[in-house]
Amino acid sequence: MTAVAPIGHAVEQPLDHAAELEIVGRLFGEIAAMTPDTEGVSRPAFSTIETRTLEYLEAFARKEGLEVWYDAGLNANFALPGDREAERFTLVASHVDSVPFGGNYDGLAGVVSGLLCLLRAQRSGHRFSTPVHVLAMRGEESAWFGPCYLGSKALTGTLSSAELAARHRGDGRPLGEHMAEIGLPMEDIRNGAPLADLSRIETYIELHIEQGPLLIGRNIPAAVVSGIRGNFRHREIVCVGEAGHSGAVPKAYRRDPVLALADLLVRLDESWTTILNKGDDLVVTSGIVATDPEKHAMSRIPDSVRFSLDIRSQSAETLDDMRRLLKAEMRQVERERKVRFEVDPELRVEPALCDPRIVDGLKAAMERAGQEPFVMASGGGHDAAVFAGAGVPAGMVFVRNQNGSHNPAEAMELDDFLRAADIVYEFLMGEKR
Amino acid sequence: MTAVAPIGHAVEQPLDHAAELEIVGRLFGEIAAMTPDTEGVSRPAFSTIETRTLEYLEAFARKEGLEVWYDAGLNANFALPGDREAERFTLVASHVDSVPFGGNYDGLAGVVSGLLCLLRAQRSGHRFSTPVHVLAMRGEESAWFGPCYLGSKALTGTLSSAELAARHRGDGRPLGEHMAEIGLPMEDIRNGAPLADLSRIETYIELHIEQGPLLIGRNIPAAVVSGIRGNFRHREIVCVGEAGHSGAVPKAYRRDPVLALADLLVRLDESWTTILNKGDDLVVTSGIVATDPEKHAMSRIPDSVRFSLDIRSQSAETLDDMRRLLKAEMRQVERERKVRFEVDPELRVEPALCDPRIVDGLKAAMERAGQEPFVMASGGGHDAAVFAGAGVPAGMVFVRNQNGSHNPAEAMELDDFLRAADIVYEFLMGEKR
Repeated sequence: MTAVAPIGHAVEQPLDHAAELEIVGRLFGEIAAMTPDTEGVSRPAFSTIETRTLEYLEAFARKEGLEVWYDAGLNANFALPGDREAERFTLVASHVDSVPFGGNYDGLAGVVSGLLCLLRAQRSGHRFSTPVHVLAMRGEESAWFGPCYLGSKALTGTLSSAELAARHRGDGRPLGEHMAEIGLPMEDIRNGAPLADLSRIETYIELHIEQGPLLIGRNIPAAVVSGIRGNFRHREIVCVGEAGHSGAVPKAYRRDPVLALADLLVRLDESWTTILNKGDDLVVTSGIVATDPEKHAMSRIPDSVRFSLDIRSQSAETLDDMRRLLKAEMRQVERERKVRFEVDPELRVEPALCDPRIVDGLKAAMERAGQEPFVMASGGGHDAAVFAGAGVPAGMVFVRNQNGSHNPAEAMELDDFLRAADIVYEFLMGEKR
Repeated sequence: MTAVAPIGHAVEQPLDHAAELEIVGRLFGEIAAMTPDTEGVSRPAFSTIETRTLEYLEAFARKEGLEVWYDAGLNANFALPGDREAERFTLVASHVDSVPFGGNYDGLAGVVSGLLCLLRAQRSGHRFSTPVHVLAMRGEESAWFGPCYLGSKALTGTLSSAELAARHRGDGRPLGEHMAEIGLPMEDIRNGAPLADLSRIETYIELHIEQGPLLIGRNIPAAVVSGIRGNFRHREIVCVGEAGHSGAVPKAYRRDPVLALADLLVRLDESWTTILNKGDDLVVTSGIVATDPEKHAMSRIPDSVRFSLDIRSQSAETLDDMRRLLKAEMRQVERERKVRFEVDPELRVEPALCDPRIVDGLKAAMERAGQEPFVMASGGGHDAAVFAGAGVPAGMVFVRNQNGSHNPAEAMELDDFLRAADIVYEFLMGEKR
């Protein structure tokens, strides 16, 4: 990806397209090399790998003459010299953690876009219409503890005690312990005191790779986001039946949890189709399904099977409908198949709308950057939803990206990334320069 | 279980009911204590735990004055003094290995019943109608390597090279390596040379706990077995789809392997019901279902899910029908859900009938032991099927047993066990004593 295309906006260019490609290519490449997994990358939430990633960004930014500091949530913050103390500012934010076996761009692209905007302004001498802080956050991914947006929830004072008690997939220790270990102010967090002064944040902007295939399908490099799907999720539901010999128990005597789960999933799948046919928005995923590896055998009816559920919609009403439907179908399957579903507490994120004024501002910025404005909904959840929920006007920009996210094959083109960063930069500069 | 009931047959009784209860209770108890798992027992096939179990039985038998030797398959053999060299004999056999988290009686009950018959004859001075060898075999359970009846297949020269290459669930090393390690004659086994001289075996008799609920339901302590269900099985089929973000990929773009598997299982379940309604015999089990624990996450559509299938019937024709149906349904699901099933080689056991002459002999023995003759089919497979397949006339006796087998809750009553052992003993003594 070194083909040179002119940048959409016309400014004096101490950083030309090739130089920008070189800088962002180096940042993405060096961070991926620091945080490898067997395949793809792994940057666990609230881990030393995450800390090292922030320190790498800190070193880069200091060398470029930017101001760098850590907030009370131990997230890295960056600004042009002099802008740190601004009374009000625009926050360009994203996260640096990834899922295990993850891609390099989910999260990190947003942070790099913010740094690039700072560099552009610094090299060109142009001033943002409002001072800009760039925020590189910890702990957004649910893969590590179950709940998500942990870093932004700590900043906005909305991390629940249930979330603090959620256990790490690897070591089984609760989130609160992991946070305390790296020095977060646990008393404030437990008391729900926001670690950031939200009143100073005029606008929250987040650039993120698209996690679905829409922009690829439409052949568009970037988009403005209208809103973010909410969800309700269960990390682990256990379907309990009765173990037995695979050959010796007649069908009528069985309480087979695997067939019960299959039955439940097919029922949910059928309702999903019905809801889509009505024109409503919905996605349903069971990402984890597992009989007990210590006990299961080809020749044994398992006593139980555990599974996760992740149900998302842009409509709070559709989510409520699905919540009721899930309960009703589980009851039905329990009766028909003589099993029992042990349901863990629901994890829940409300659908969030982006601020209409910001959506308009980003559309105008997209036009100024020489791109046809395109607006779409976000399927994935994002930290932006947490800030929006805390009353901060929020907006998002998506970058085209092949192969989805949360997997090693994420493939954002750097040219597309620069087109999307152009939108953010134009927005930050404002209409009137 | 110390209530004293008179033994069904009338012989001089150097061993009374209480003494027999004490002996078999001690054997079962001490072996369970030697081979514990987190729950239940674990006696892995071709392991040192299995070897120690045989050595325990050896020590017990020597102390009782029985002759003990190991055959070329390193299985333990027992006989009354002088009977070892008999030209023809009746073999009372079973296995000592168990599944992980298994029950104590599946397999071991048959071995103990044989030893008890030897002790009864020795103490009473009565002679068997034909000399009796008792055989305590290794490696019957499929839980460890995938294929089953490994010990009896080695004895009958029917272990395939695919079976020898099957990998252990724990250490991933092939069966052949495990066998070689404890000293089995691998060249003979690979050449398909029977390790036992089958021409000397007049009759093969196996006592086993019932692995289903029929005798419990009918309130009968023991039964004669008419035949053994055959099966075809797949240890690991992988359904391959495409990973993606749980929130961001619309339904139409998904290739979700978990929903595809659910769809397949529900289709098989429906056909199962149809086949039962036609009056045919069938059981279907998927005992292992697992997304990849290294990669799966609540918020990710998994790229694949693996599962086992175990399909059994007394009818070879029904098995053939199910084999065709499975293929057709997989093709259908592949087309509709854009996934791919990667199917491992089929493991296969033909249905086996017990020898009608032996069934009649066991029914007569049951009557002589004061029990109403009752005949039923076996749902589980047994080493008896391997000997029957190798041309040895075979028969089986079932003992009532609560909670099925292959699980820690197996609950055979020792009184029921003695009733079933009575049938074997009467059979071995013959009509004319």
